[in-house]
Order: sequence, then C-alpha cells, then structure tokens
Amino acid sequence: MPSRPENHDPLLGELSEGSILRAILSRTPPGSLTILGPGDDAAVISAPSGSVVATTDTLVHGPDFRLAWTSGYDLGWKAAAVNLADVAAMGARPTALLVALAVPRDLRLSFVERLADGFRDACEALAPGCAVVGGDLTVSDVLTVAVTALGDLEGRSAITRSGARPGESVAIAGELGLAARGLAVLFGRFRDGETPVPVDPSRLGDGEAAAVAAQLRPSPPIGLGPMAAVTGATAMMDVSDGLALDAGRLADASGVTLALDGHALGSDARRALAGGEDHALLATFPEGMLAPGFRVIGRVVEPSGDGVLCDGEPVDVRGWDPYRDWDSAAG
Amino acid sequence: MPSRPENHDPLLGELSEGSILRAILSRTPPGSLTILGPGDDAAVISAPSGSVVATTDTLVHGPDFRLAWTSGYDLGWKAAAVNLADVAAMGARPTALLVALAVPRDLRLSFVERLADGFRDACEALAPGCAVVGGDLTVSDVLTVAVTALGDLEGRSAITRSGARPGESVAIAGELGLAARGLAVLFGRFRDGETPVPVDPSRLGDGEAAAVAAQLRPSPPIGLGPMAAVTGATAMMDVSDGLALDAGRLADASGVTLALDGHALGSDARRALAGGEDHALLATFPEGMLAPGFRVIGRVVEPSGDGVLCDGEPVDVRGWDPYRDWDSAAG
Repeated sequence: MPSRPENHDPLLGELSEGSILRAILSRTPPGSLTILGPGDDAAVISAPSGSVVATTDTLVHGPDFRLAWTSGYDLGWKAAAVNLADVAAMGARPTALLVALAVPRDLRLSFVERLADGFRDACEALAPGCAVVGGDLTVSDVLTVAVTALGDLEGRSAITRSGARPGESVAIAGELGLAARGLAVLFGRFRDGETPVPVDPSRLGDGEAAAVAAQLRPSPPIGLGPMAAVTGATAMMDVSDGLALDAGRLADASGVTLALDGHALGSDARRALAGGEDHALLATFPEGMLAPGFRVIGRVVEPSGDGVLCDGEPVDVRGWDPYRDWDSAAG
Repeated sequence: MPSRPENHDPLLGELSEGSILRAILSRTPPGSLTILGPGDDAAVISAPSGSVVATTDTLVHGPDFRLAWTSGYDLGWKAAAVNLADVAAMGARPTALLVALAVPRDLRLSFVERLADGFRDACEALAPGCAVVGGDLTVSDVLTVAVTALGDLEGRSAITRSGARPGESVAIAGELGLAARGLAVLFGRFRDGETPVPVDPSRLGDGEAAAVAAQLRPSPPIGLGPMAAVTGATAMMDVSDGLALDAGRLADASGVTLALDGHALGSDARRALAGGEDHALLATFPEGMLAPGFRVIGRVVEPSGDGVLCDGEPVDVRGWDPYRDWDSAAG
C-alpha cells in the first residue's frame, strides 16, 4: 500500500536516480555484520569465518512474477527469501543482500518503497542480522530484480549436495507443494482470458489464502539451515524446482538413490513431489540424527538406475511451472 | 566471433537452462580464492581479511549498451570491468564475480559463450585470481547482465570517499574522457537514422579505434586500487559518471573542495571533466605521497561553496551520456 496519496506518488521517470535510491535506502537499515553500508563504491561486510558464501537469483516480470498478482512488498520479500534460502542451504547464516533493480520509467515511487520494505521485513523475519548493504538502479522496460546474498559459515564447512551416503535419513524442513497450489489458484481463478487480474481475497476458499501467500511471499525456514549443519547434515539443498527434480540433483551429486516414503509427503504426494518454489530445505542426516524442524521423508540407499524412488517406484514428474512457457506479456 | 558455423549455433530458446549454464561455466575456470565454485546452491570464496567488499552493477540493453555495437565478448568484458573497478576503488583486491543473466530466447548460444569468454579474459587481464564463481540464467525480452563483484581488503581498512583533507594531492590513474570520445564516434558515425549499425573499423580515423575500444571494452587500472591503499591514499572512488560529477561526490563526502589544474587534464580538459565510463581511479594522497601509476591533477583545499574548481573556476559540466535519454529500442 502506498504511504501517500497517488497525486504525491511520482513516476520513477520523473525522479533522479539519487532520489530514488535515497528513498529505498532510508527504509533498509544496516545489519549487525554491515561494516560499511550503501553510499560508496562498494559495501564492506564482516566475514568472521574467513570465507563468504555467495549466491545470485533474479526475478523477471513475466517468467517469474506478474504485477497484477504481486505487490512491491511481496516482490521484495520473495526476492529476498529465495536468495536467503540458497545461503541457508549451504548451512550458512545470511549476512547481506545486494539488490540490482532494473525498473520501467512508468512505475511509481511507492512501488519501490514498498519493495524496499519487503526486503527489510523478509530479512528481519527470516534472517535477523542480515540487511541490504548495496544496490544498483537502472532503467529497463522489463522490471527485473537481481539479488545477491552473502552468508557466513560460522566456522563450519559448507554443506554441499554431494555428501549423502547410503543408510542416512532424508529429511525436509518447510512446505512441499503449497506454493504450487497457490500458483494453481492464481492461474485458475485470477485471470481474464490470458491476462492476470488482481487477487480478490473474498474469492479464496479454505486454505487457498495460505497457498497464495506461500506463492507470493514464501517463508522458507532460513534459520534451520545453519541448525542442520550444526546437527551433522551430510548434504543439503533448497527445493526450488520441486522435490522430485531437486532430490534427483542431490542424488546425482552424491552418487546415491533417495528412497522416499509417499506417506511422509502429506495428503497430495504428487503435488509435494512436483511443486516448486516452496524453498524447503532438503537434507540428509546420519542414522539417528535429525535437526529440529526437520521431518524424515525417506532413506538414502545404494544407487539404482533412478535417482529418486517413491514407495519403491521411480518418480516421473516434471516440476510444474506454468510461468515457464507462458508468453503473454500482459499484467 | 562464434566458434561454430551458424547452423550449429542454436537459439537459447531451443536449449535447457542447464545446458546453457554448462556451456558458460566450462569457459570460466575457478580463481585462486574460489573454495567452492558453481554447481551448488551457493559458492564459497575465501575472505582472508575476515571481511568482504561487495558491489553490484547492471548493464541493460538500451540504456547501457547496444547489440549492434557490442559483441558478447565486449559485453562480458565491460560488465566485469565496471564491477572490478568499484572493488578496486575501495582499495580491495577482487576475488569473485557472480553473474545474473536475463536473456531473450532468440539470442544465440555463441553469444553467451563469448560473453563468458569476456568475463574470463577481463578477470585474467585486469584482476588475476578473480573468477566467476556463480550465476543465474533467466529469460527476458531485454538482455540484462547484473554482476556482483566481491573483494578482499588484505588486512587494510577500506578507502572510502570521505577521507580527503585540505593540503593533500588529488590524483588519477587511468584514462579521462577516452570512453566518452568513443561513444561520440559511435553515435556520430555508426547509426542509420536512430538505429545503431555495426562498427566498420576501416572508417575509424587515428585514435578513434582506441576511443571506441575504451568505450566498448574498458581497461580500468584495477591493480592500482590496492596499490593506492598501500601507499596511503586517504580517499578513493572510480570515475564512472565523469570527473566533474564524481570529484564533486568525493568533495561532498569529505567536506572539502578539490582544486583541479586544467593543464593536468590533457588536451581536452572539458571532455576529461565531463566524459564518463573510463572507470579511472580518483584518489587523494597526503603531501609527498603518490602511488605508482597515479598522476597529480590538483589539490584538496578548504571547502568553498563549490565542490570542484578547475583553474580556480567552478566546474559546471554534466556527465555526458547520450544513452540516458535515448529511447529508441532498435539495434
């Protein structure tokens, strides 16, 4: 929601880059590990472990989000959350975000102000101590939010995808399939022909509001990543493209097969296997160990021809992503 | 130049994200400080100082470059160089790049392969030991290259913009105005109406080829940033928007006036003051100190009403940037 009446909400094309950046940065306070924040050629962030974890992920209007469905606040929150999840999946604690915005001239100032609010609040809620330390603003016809997240391993080794060994447990922290259900609601209910239309909350049934929120403003369990590392996780990754696809990648990297238990995947195992964008944490633990917040969904077994089995059967689902091949630029 | 005949040079829209990423990453070897390179949720980079310098800068087709003038190789090189310069301007040594690409489906594979070559070669030439450690690939109608650069301070403090004190020397390392001259040649000579057309080298006069190269493939003196810090630089920044504008920012941050000597700015002082995109390093040094590769162009004096004087007169030039307000999307 804009914090001022629309007649005082200028188009970005009417403002200087400096004044837009000031409006954004006044909303994003420094974090506990920020040594030097925005305003110079570069930021300086503490890296107490003597190494830094770094990842980048971009949201592009069209393939990754639609303005008709997504507010500035939600977009900032989601862009932060998906990057924080990648840091957490290494077992690291997020320390800083850098945000590169490419914005159309006809976007309003309130939109990027709320975007900044979303970044700030996602950091506070999901990764306390992490903050926006730098950014870049440029003009583009296609709204694009490119985020880099940094993190610290707190003296531990990174938890990669390749450490799973037969006999270990396969475990999950976070939602499976809820964001995909939300996307299905958006595509099924809030379009006029091919054009997305704003979400009317009164038309959302039981559970649908939570599903739509999971899609638009995901809350991955960032703090559980470092906790899994402390507890002895042997491999970890975040589930962004669907459990089946991502578990297959972990199995591949580790040279094992993951044998999942369908009953552990909830009432809709197929959606849990196929649905992406929840950014749950998938991890493997030695027998008898399990980090708080994780639940066991299967076992690591000797490699068979298939990377992932569910109830003994090969899993053949493609991560469901209607955005991917959907070319309509409207909305 | 594509490394294969065009009939074996597929459109990106025909390929999977994974195969494009593999083609890119096979061309960018790890650096000396890369602990874990691409392929997992995040990279891990050594940060021997216990802190990390981080900056992000984006190049968008249209405002920042035109495909008619810029090859994939040049684009990769420039996107690396402008980010490396921001790290160097803090007195830090670049350690890693993260590259977020948003690419149109009708771009050819050879273009992004050459882009990767440009990133690799710019790192090798300008910042040995630095490497591409991670990235992201997404689809967009507008070709966008968002880069984050990381660096290490090697145990020193960061050199900010705010440390200049009256009595010190103002010095420069690198070109002033050459890239702007190159841009003027492109705009003046290589357009069909408003549409950019490819550069024909045979039409470039004496010195023009070097100017065009400075615009399309800049070589800022990255290694001199850490050297300036070692030598005792009190303030430093990279000159991206023109000397007059950027020196004004440094003067502002330091609460001083920079009194420049017009004779020290070369044969075309006006272009040296106004022209951006050379990414020269502007630094101040205590009396009697000067890092190798730097030349004195003036003195720091007590603050007057103006941030920057040239031969005693206030400088009133706007960084010259014909891209900025040029809306034509062609080329």
